[in-house]
Amino acid sequence: MIKFDAQNSGIETDVTSEEVSEKLKKIEARGQGFYKIVDDSVDEILEYASSVEGKYDDIVVLGIGGSALGTICLQQALKHLHKPKKLHVLDNIDPTFLRELDDVVDYSRTLIIVISKSGGTPETLSQYFYFREKCENFVFITGPTGLLRETGDKEGIKMFEVPENVGGRFSVLTVVGLLPAALIGIDILALLKGAQEMRDKFLNENPNENIPYQIATLQYLHGKEGRNMTVMMPYSQRLIRFTDWYRQLLAESIGKTPEVGLTPVSALGVTDQHSQSQLYMDGPDDKFFIMIKVEDLGPEVMIPGDEVDYLKGVSFNKLMHTEQKGTTDALTHNKKPNVTLNVPKVDEYNLGALFMLFEGATAFLGEFYGINAFDQPGVELSKKLTKELLTGSEA
Amino acid sequence: MIKFDAQNSGIETDVTSEEVSEKLKKIEARGQGFYKIVDDSVDEILEYASSVEGKYDDIVVLGIGGSALGTICLQQALKHLHKPKKLHVLDNIDPTFLRELDDVVDYSRTLIIVISKSGGTPETLSQYFYFREKCENFVFITGPTGLLRETGDKEGIKMFEVPENVGGRFSVLTVVGLLPAALIGIDILALLKGAQEMRDKFLNENPNENIPYQIATLQYLHGKEGRNMTVMMPYSQRLIRFTDWYRQLLAESIGKTPEVGLTPVSALGVTDQHSQSQLYMDGPDDKFFIMIKVEDLGPEVMIPGDEVDYLKGVSFNKLMHTEQKGTTDALTHNKKPNVTLNVPKVDEYNLGALFMLFEGATAFLGEFYGINAFDQPGVELSKKLTKELLTGSEA
Repeated sequence: MIKFDAQNSGIETDVTSEEVSEKLKKIEARGQGFYKIVDDSVDEILEYASSVEGKYDDIVVLGIGGSALGTICLQQALKHLHKPKKLHVLDNIDPTFLRELDDVVDYSRTLIIVISKSGGTPETLSQYFYFREKCENFVFITGPTGLLRETGDKEGIKMFEVPENVGGRFSVLTVVGLLPAALIGIDILALLKGAQEMRDKFLNENPNENIPYQIATLQYLHGKEGRNMTVMMPYSQRLIRFTDWYRQLLAESIGKTPEVGLTPVSALGVTDQHSQSQLYMDGPDDKFFIMIKVEDLGPEVMIPGDEVDYLKGVSFNKLMHTEQKGTTDALTHNKKPNVTLNVPKVDEYNLGALFMLFEGATAFLGEFYGINAFDQPGVELSKKLTKELLTGSEA
Repeated sequence: MIKFDAQNSGIETDVTSEEVSEKLKKIEARGQGFYKIVDDSVDEILEYASSVEGKYDDIVVLGIGGSALGTICLQQALKHLHKPKKLHVLDNIDPTFLRELDDVVDYSRTLIIVISKSGGTPETLSQYFYFREKCENFVFITGPTGLLRETGDKEGIKMFEVPENVGGRFSVLTVVGLLPAALIGIDILALLKGAQEMRDKFLNENPNENIPYQIATLQYLHGKEGRNMTVMMPYSQRLIRFTDWYRQLLAESIGKTPEVGLTPVSALGVTDQHSQSQLYMDGPDDKFFIMIKVEDLGPEVMIPGDEVDYLKGVSFNKLMHTEQKGTTDALTHNKKPNVTLNVPKVDEYNLGALFMLFEGATAFLGEFYGINAFDQPGVELSKKLTKELLTGSEA
């Protein structure tokens, strides 16, 4: 299981179980389902996945934001790092991005999953209108009402329901993430098992056991000291898209008022040591760092050659770990507050735990600020302006 | 050519040509070559590219930071958005990331380009030691001295030289970016033409003509008002990696002291409207926004269907533009300072101009702060600690 090392966090926290308990009650009162882990749909997902096995060469997801980011992360983390992807997530409406898909898929052997909880996301609906003229194989993942639901009913399209009480950015462990994952051979039961074990930590009133609570506490306290950014920096190529998933979660959940909002910053070890470290080390003290170390980076790969003394007999695995420690120690030396998550390996189990860890931490963080972490009122104006511009009604 | 719209920048600037001229002189005094555009190596690059035409199915770049980010951006911006990439940039040392390359390339038909200006980047050298046991086809891009240069001399490997006075993060328009680009069929002459035209703007003492100067001025003034982040948000799937290139440029060039450092934030339109907009609209006023509109998004792709009134007769091209305007207007309405770059299209010419625009802006920004934008002293400690940890000399 994931271990948490907060020794360089820069802040002494003194949390009682009453405080944890009080925040858990507030979260419970919001009626959110993300930590309930709806596994009653799992059988239906697995059954469907096995019923279409071998039928499709490509899977296309039409979805944006919370309908896309978890799935992109799952594929990057758990599938081959170089082979062409079997699953294409179209999370943009760039016309060339849509049009050029023609050149790589055979629509008669392609399954398209349309995901929109409201059933009315304009980007996703537009994409559906476009691809239904090319392809006949659709599945919808949507809420109980809306245009997508109506269309699915009329056309007899197979549909899965997004749980009412789980918002898009908290939905990776529902059918939204689980169905695409199952279709590319990811073990969703192991994913849920990891999530459930972390959920138990999230619900544990003992603050020493509750990693989500500890992280939220530190983010909150550092935020109060003017550190308006949280940098997440995993040392694993497999987790390069995990930080994008977390970016949405933190930004939309907590960015709510001129006084309340932490900006998530994605980084990747060791790559971004050569792109961001200079700023992190010498620049302003405006960041709190969450480093992620992956213990098992796969079979050991040795660095051959003897031209460089300090690389003799060293493996890439060891070099990766050592650079992670060197960078973390340098941050600490430069008085940049940081914590480290030790993840045994990037597999379904640990990834499930990571998703739940940060969903829980974000829910706690909302309660620290006393805001609703589960809505997004700020995006309405741009949607309204876009519709007015399209219909000319702004005149 | 690129046009700059600063009407919602939130700050009135009143710049004289004397100020521009003074900063240009300071930049000149630093002896940097990024804006000189070394085109004397272009013939050698084109000649080499044509000499190996048809010989290789895959190109692999071993390089990290400034040796990788420009090339990744060039491929994403100018090649097919879905077809498997011919060029693989290995900008990490994750052992699985290296090992799994075996499954997708035939090393007898693969050319490996090793890029390290110092010739001593440990990550890149380790990768070279690893791949030279699998592959016989190498090119080196390196400085006049160092281990890579010595090895290349000894082994008779074809080498290209990185200009002495151009640092890694400013090197995309040198052989570092141009050679890989030429090998995948990118028109490097057009790239340089766009860069040269923007270079002329950068050297223009008239502030109204000098887009790089105008952007730097705004970043500096907003930074002084507590906006410690620059968000760059292009509305084009082709530019998703351009922001990663810029991230390094801004972070490493300007992040120099506890008082001086702007954190670059990458975003993508319309995708990140569904991931970051809530924070941008309602959250703290700690960001300055650079929106990038691409006028020509390729052949028009219509949105069929008549179920949604406001989408009837609309193309994806128009929807993309309208969402960009809706989001920009909402930022302005919420008093979030923003500017817009209007880019005619994503092609070699305009991409060359974009690179030069932000290299120039970053050079000016360094002079506003009175710092050296061209070094990176802050990364030395973590390198030292890593070496000590590897050799046990820290004990």
